[in-house]
Amino acid sequence: MAKSKFEYVRLFETEDRCLPNTWIVVRVDGKGFHKFSTEHEYEKPNDMRGLSLMTRAATAVMEEFKDISIAYGQSDEYSFIFRKETQVYSRRSAKLSTNVCSLFTSAFVYYWSEFFPTSKPLYPPVFDGRTVLYPSDQNMRDYLSWRQADCHINNLYNTTFWALILKAGLTPSEAEQKLRGTFSADKNEILFSQFGINYNNESDMLKKGTLLVRRKVPVPLPNGGTREKSQIVQQHVDVIGDDFWKESGHFLTASNPK
Amino acid sequence: MAKSKFEYVRLFETEDRCLPNTWIVVRVDGKGFHKFSTEHEYEKPNDMRGLSLMTRAATAVMEEFKDISIAYGQSDEYSFIFRKETQVYSRRSAKLSTNVCSLFTSAFVYYWSEFFPTSKPLYPPVFDGRTVLYPSDQNMRDYLSWRQADCHINNLYNTTFWALILKAGLTPSEAEQKLRGTFSADKNEILFSQFGINYNNESDMLKKGTLLVRRKVPVPLPNGGTREKSQIVQQHVDVIGDDFWKESGHFLTASNPK
Amino acid sequence: MAKSKFEYVRLFETEDRCLPNTWIVVRVDGKGFHKFSTEHEYEKPNDMRGLSLMTRAATAVMEEFKDISIAYGQSDEYSFIFRKETQVYSRRSAKLSTNVCSLFTSAFVYYWSEFFPTSKPLYPPVFDGRTVLYPSDQNMRDYLSWRQADCHINNLYNTTFWALILKAGLTPSEAEQKLRGTFSADKNEILFSQFGINYNNESDMLKKGTLLVRRKVPVPLPNGGTREKSQIVQQHVDVIGDDFWKESGHFLTASNPK
Amino acid sequence: MAKSKFEYVRLFETEDRCLPNTWIVVRVDGKGFHKFSTEHEYEKPNDMRGLSLMTRAATAVMEEFKDISIAYGQSDEYSFIFRKETQVYSRRSAKLSTNVCSLFTSAFVYYWSEFFPTSKPLYPPVFDGRTVLYPSDQNMRDYLSWRQADCHINNLYNTTFWALILKAGLTPSEAEQKLRGTFSADKNEILFSQFGINYNNESDMLKKGTLLVRRKVPVPLPNGGTREKSQIVQQHVDVIGDDFWKESGHFLTASNPK
Repeated sequence: MAKSKFEYVRLFETEDRCLPNTWIVVRVDGKGFHKFSTEHEYEKPNDMRGLSLMTRAATAVMEEFKDISIAYGQSDEYSFIFRKETQVYSRRSAKLSTNVCSLFTSAFVYYWSEFFPTSKPLYPPVFDGRTVLYPSDQNMRDYLSWRQADCHINNLYNTTFWALILKAGLTPSEAEQKLRGTFSADKNEILFSQFGINYNNESDMLKKGTLLVRRKVPVPLPNGGTREKSQIVQQHVDVIGDDFWKESGHFLTASNPK
Repeated sequence: MAKSKFEYVRLFETEDRCLPNTWIVVRVDGKGFHKFSTEHEYEKPNDMRGLSLMTRAATAVMEEFKDISIAYGQSDEYSFIFRKETQVYSRRSAKLSTNVCSLFTSAFVYYWSEFFPTSKPLYPPVFDGRTVLYPSDQNMRDYLSWRQADCHINNLYNTTFWALILKAGLTPSEAEQKLRGTFSADKNEILFSQFGINYNNESDMLKKGTLLVRRKVPVPLPNGGTREKSQIVQQHVDVIGDDFWKESGHFLTASNPK
Repeated sequence: MAKSKFEYVRLFETEDRCLPNTWIVVRVDGKGFHKFSTEHEYEKPNDMRGLSLMTRAATAVMEEFKDISIAYGQSDEYSFIFRKETQVYSRRSAKLSTNVCSLFTSAFVYYWSEFFPTSKPLYPPVFDGRTVLYPSDQNMRDYLSWRQADCHINNLYNTTFWALILKAGLTPSEAEQKLRGTFSADKNEILFSQFGINYNNESDMLKKGTLLVRRKVPVPLPNGGTREKSQIVQQHVDVIGDDFWKESGHFLTASNPK
Repeated sequence: MAKSKFEYVRLFETEDRCLPNTWIVVRVDGKGFHKFSTEHEYEKPNDMRGLSLMTRAATAVMEEFKDISIAYGQSDEYSFIFRKETQVYSRRSAKLSTNVCSLFTSAFVYYWSEFFPTSKPLYPPVFDGRTVLYPSDQNMRDYLSWRQADCHINNLYNTTFWALILKAGLTPSEAEQKLRGTFSADKNEILFSQFGINYNNESDMLKKGTLLVRRKVPVPLPNGGTREKSQIVQQHVDVIGDDFWKESGHFLTASNPK
């Protein structure tokens, strides 16, 4: 097809290939989701519909990008970990972050009505995206640990904060005041002594966030037998310790281990 | 709030600030939209609903980012031109591309039903995004000229291609065969002699694409007077020649012209 | 020639092309030159041999890289301004900075004995290099103005500082103490009233630094006539005001002005 | 000290920090050294003075940068491997490449007369520099293997090529013609049958290049005892196989192994 004399402007685009043999993490984060969740009457401290919708959107991303081996989500964010050796989009950073971010956003709006059947969002929700590289397996594990520790810290805080408001009738600023400077043990104690809540018994999904991984699951065959099929499954488990990685070490194994 | 020992992984994020005093263009492109438009029964060669939905989504982006002075769209793409001096997101490239791309995508799904009232998309549509820098006003104008020349070339081709199929009964491969190696004049001639279509009389929106700009428009006041208000308006005009820029030179004028 | 299976490691090199149509400035800076100049008994406040050697090295760089239109030096630094459109090394940033820096360093050592005939350096001197981009002519001019203002400020300070030490017998810390918080006018006054020095009469080379530009100069021919030849010449003039640029506007004119 | 209004131009400098926890390799390469070696009458196929001068310059670089654990040189190039965790120059890529490149160049000119006592270089020699990152130990080893395989291939070729010219009286183009398409075995055979040279008996320095590493060496004490001191030593050994790494695995061990 004919080309115009303006074609030269393409030369202003820059290369942004990610370093080879490096874990690529794309994280999407809700933009202004504190406000968004209030305006859409999310339940406090956690709204299961909102969290489930996040996981639905993340699943759509994992279905599209086979080179994502693990996704981890909590609150209004989801992280996608591409295999070290992925060649998707020639490892171009902006291609990866914008495609993942766009698909996540699109699926979030698309599947909204499955989780909030009675209403439409008041306006189009937005997520930003970023690409970060981690050279070693330990760095990548530490990234996930960082997000899971963040989940734990925030969820314990929010659970106590909202108990003080919803059950003890404090105002938000009174609750904030009361929690200022407290440690985890203090919040556990408040929950237990004041509200009879044993934080350990809270749901793992809230305490640990959601891990999406691919597992071989048996699928029944017409002849009564079964065959294995790779499927995306949710787990709400600890990723900071070694147990998950002992069991799931194959996520770390590159097909071309250099 | 307490910080974990895993916090160090934040140091792996990289700076990606755009060069100061440079035009920032963010372009979003439909991913697999040839297939998407077929599956959603877009009219050929152009579907006014689809194009209008694109412009609706682009308008949402311009409403959000006041530092976008011009947007230009055609087919399944839209380009957003940020003022040279914008400091939005500290000019971080990935923040700009992912936020624009996410909002555009979100609005596309969100407003879909206003343009395709009888159906829901079959799956979440996706757009990719990229950030490109242009140092001079002429480079930026040439960027827009490049996209508009592309619009012209593609629309003339598609108009002729689909006339051959829909009106002359050719198969797609027969139509492709017939157009191979033809110049613009040839296609104009086919349209006119064979289908009585004077391409010049086709709609400017299809021939030239859609420009979104901010204009001061008079707004009536209760007292019978008017006041000026900045509003996003559509134009379907030539941006390759000088006329548009003579009239709209203020888009080029930086508030801090360095 | 045969290639090894290790060749893949080349893919880890990254693209670093400078944005097109943008001024490329490469600046080299002496590493630890305060110490270097003391150890090599540079005269204070300025050593003409040292400054001349810097300019000799810079001239070698300009002779090699025809696309450098202007170089500007002062103290232990030199800046080289490549034409906006230069394609040297495909505009690769690291190639530009390392080649300029290596040649400058090499020439500095190579020509040392022409300026310091009685001694050899005590150890190999080092310069670092960096590449910075400036999109507009005004930005590039402001860059040069920044370096020249820096030259002025430092030279006035150093001239006064060393007069206090060498002529008034102060210790360095006494001199520093005396100058703390003073303005230019104060230093001019100290120089004049205490040492009879009118700073305005100091050499332009010290006050303004050294500009290297290419000028057409007449060269005598055997037949008694002359022809014009491009030659690198030194100037010690103000680049902050407009006069230099009115006379030398051709430095700003790109051969392919986009 | 007073700042000028032009100071803003500093904001145009960009961040270029290397990804943490990644091997940083800086390689310097002679610019136009084919010509340089001819003009300076280097002996063919190898000039021991030239190679020794390269190693002298590389030693100066290693003495300056304690975080370089290994350097490897052959022909007109030297590679410097910084520890994964180095924080020198905050891991800024251009700082690393220009400082290493400048010091290498400076030392090359500075120590020239120790290796070429009767002459001065005809002009200042130049080296370019580049920074490349390698995430895994294996990648870094493969980088060194790549350079050493290159050394082997080139040295076998050059040894045969120059034997054909210097001993068999061929012209360069005849020698080139004769070697076109030959494999290593063919060249070994030519050397042996035609010139009685067993390539295996050639010097390891020429066949394998030069490795600079830090070793604890015993230093005699006045009291008759010894103490250990870290010293830069040359080795001409194979780095492609495992033996070197078994013995020298501590180079791979980060002090902060993440």
